[in-house]
This record gives sequence, C-alpha cells and structure tokens, in this order.
Amino acid sequence: MATRPDPVLPADDAARALSRDLLAATHAALSYLEPETALPAISRIAFGLDPAGVPMTLISALAPHSAALRANPACALLLGEPGPKGDPLTHPRLMLQARAQFIAPDDPNRPTLRDHWLAHHPKSKLYIDFADFSLVRLHPVSALLNGGFGRAFRLSPADLT
Amino acid sequence: MATRPDPVLPADDAARALSRDLLAATHAALSYLEPETALPAISRIAFGLDPAGVPMTLISALAPHSAALRANPACALLLGEPGPKGDPLTHPRLMLQARAQFIAPDDPNRPTLRDHWLAHHPKSKLYIDFADFSLVRLHPVSALLNGGFGRAFRLSPADLT
Repeated sequence: MATRPDPVLPADDAARALSRDLLAATHAALSYLEPETALPAISRIAFGLDPAGVPMTLISALAPHSAALRANPACALLLGEPGPKGDPLTHPRLMLQARAQFIAPDDPNRPTLRDHWLAHHPKSKLYIDFADFSLVRLHPVSALLNGGFGRAFRLSPADLT
Repeated sequence: MATRPDPVLPADDAARALSRDLLAATHAALSYLEPETALPAISRIAFGLDPAGVPMTLISALAPHSAALRANPACALLLGEPGPKGDPLTHPRLMLQARAQFIAPDDPNRPTLRDHWLAHHPKSKLYIDFADFSLVRLHPVSALLNGGFGRAFRLSPADLT
C-alpha cells in the first residue's frame, strides 16, 4: 500500500477564519451515543452560538438525542453544507467534538441566551418556551477543519472564538 | 412538563417513497466511534447504493473514519440536505444505523461494485483505484425518517429497497 504524509496540518489564520465562517451555520449534524445500545446515532439539529461564541442548540425532549445527551454529554457536530454543485467532498466542513450542557429553565442566564437565540433563529419563537424544549450549550473539546482533499487542520477550542 | 404522544409512526408507503428519494443522495454525514477514546465523532462521506440498493461509500485510509470503522463497524448516516430556504428542521432527512463492511481489493464483487459506483460518481475515477481507497458497504440495521416536526417514521431495512 502506498504511504503518504499525515494530512492533518496545524491551524493557521486562514483555517481559523474559515472555521468561524462555518460556525455561522443555522443547522448541524449531531453524532451521539444511543443510551440503550451505546451505538453511534445521528440527528439534524438547529445550531447557533451563544453571546460568547460557544456553540448552542435548541432541542425538544421528544427528540431521541435529548435523552441521549442527558445520559452522556459526549457528542460531535458537522457544520458546513456542500450545496448543489461539484464534488461534495471538496466543500469545507468543520467537525467538532463537544460536551453538551443543558440550560435549566430557571438558570439565571437563560433569558439572555433565549433572546440571543431568537435574534438568530426568529422562527423558533413558536416553540422555544414550550416546556419540553431546552437550550443546550455544546462546549467544543477538539475540532478538525476539512477544506477539501489534502487540506485538513486540527484546531483547538480557542481557535474557534 | 407537558406530555405529548410518541411522535414516531410506523412506516407507510409515502414514508418508504420519501426514504428512497433521500437514498439518492451523493453524500452523507457519518457518525462513528473514535477508537482511541470511544467518543462519538463525525465526518462527511461520499454516498451511493450498490446494485442491490445497499448503501455504500468510498473512503481513504487517511480519513479518520476509516480506521474507526475497521475497529468498530457500528455507525450511523444522515441523508438529506436542507437547502438555503426555510427552517432547516422542516426539511426531510433519513437517519440510518448501519454496520460497515469493507470490500477487499481482491473481492470477486469489487469490479462490479467499482463500475456501479463510477456510473454514479464519475469524478471519483481520479482516485478510486489508489491503494488507500476502499469501497465500503453500510448495511442498514434500523432507520428513522424525519419528515418535519411531528412527522417521524420508524423503518426497517426492508422498507429501504
């Protein structure tokens, strides 16, 4: 088998800037562990940032990933959408490994987080205050930016804000 | 807390037809376990079907999910892209839990699978025969179709072909 050098590069300013662009996404794919089976599972989630730039989502207790993240907060996110043209694998995407932190209904920060979320996701006003919906911070643990074939960069959480 | 009925419905013909439409995707998000940490991880992969309708991908040994799937073939796939308009969570998507099966270079079925893949992914002709690339079948174990808020359906592998 042919060998090639490790394709993952250290982050540079261009990689940090592209990652911050991808963090402006309004949705993401979420990888998590199914609590009953410990098998990997996947969902689409709404996505945004809190006022400090920490990734955040709004989820219903009816969604399978809600109980899963309460049982095990380890998860991963994929941001960045290929669009209709060209090879989908040449389009940049950001993979984050993260830990979920549910915001309690009586958390003193919730009103600020709620207003910030609604400013970027106005349609969620219809359901954000339902009792089964929770805001959840997704604290990044590690990040990998893939800018297309042979252009992968390892980023730290500090590179993302 | 308000209670509502379980939103997951049994599959009907419309759900099966929509799922087959989503299986025409050319890329997917892949949820898998990182072998070193057992943490959930996520990647974008190329996606297609084999001649029998079984999901398939083409991956490089340099991609982190390649070693992960060889160590633990349990994975999950998300198919269906929101596009630029409307609430991304109202766009249909299909979640599959699956098991990966690598096709060996000398597998007698590989030439047929290779030609079928190239017919649907002509740009991969540039690298499909590199020694570090493998075709991988992703055998569905279970499936969940989400057709928008309150429209989720549980499907069996037989519903998908």
